[in-house]
Amino acid sequence: MVEKETMSTDGIVRLSKIEVYPQFLDEYVVFATEVGTISLLTEPGVLTMYAMQDKENPCMITILETYSSQKAYKAHIASEHFQKYKKGTLHMVKNLELCDQTPLNPDNIIKNTIAK
Amino acid sequence: MVEKETMSTDGIVRLSKIEVYPQFLDEYVVFATEVGTISLLTEPGVLTMYAMQDKENPCMITILETYSSQKAYKAHIASEHFQKYKKGTLHMVKNLELCDQTPLNPDNIIKNTIAK
Repeated sequence: MVEKETMSTDGIVRLSKIEVYPQFLDEYVVFATEVGTISLLTEPGVLTMYAMQDKENPCMITILETYSSQKAYKAHIASEHFQKYKKGTLHMVKNLELCDQTPLNPDNIIKNTIAK
Repeated sequence: MVEKETMSTDGIVRLSKIEVYPQFLDEYVVFATEVGTISLLTEPGVLTMYAMQDKENPCMITILETYSSQKAYKAHIASEHFQKYKKGTLHMVKNLELCDQTPLNPDNIIKNTIAK
């Protein structure tokens, strides 16, 4: 896993809320898992990429995404793996909300890794 | 900071979505920050407690909470600091949703600490 940058003042803490069409859900999960794993492993500025599926509404996916800077975010969306995800899942996504957040406690730090 | 337990099969990954009445927002943030910090620092079974405020709708707070087991969750809600938070903020909360989640990738690991 690549060494991570520290969070800059222009970094991003985001909850991406994705509603997936049910008929594409299994396929979507494969794409989302792949892009999250590659981003975390290879991008110094992708600090977290933690994707969750709602137990009550499995078509609702929430991803906690944090980027060290605007530059890191731009590098992420330009990357080959993100473009593959974006183009591959466009028809699977019913709704997408990008909800930028401010952490309540700036001393509260999350470190996100891939175990294996 | 106390040493953390590992996630059990009956652990919890949750997004708590709290809508706060605007007139109590500043006060609520103090309570939420305090309970999150104490829980992370002192409870072995509170693995993450990461609270965020939506930039567009500051009254919407989302907390990524993970507990190592059902037992750890029960210990958390019985704790003095949680009871102080719960009783102290009851009148501030307009709506509360506890949305349990399944991480897409079981190998994706989050570690949450307090920096200072």
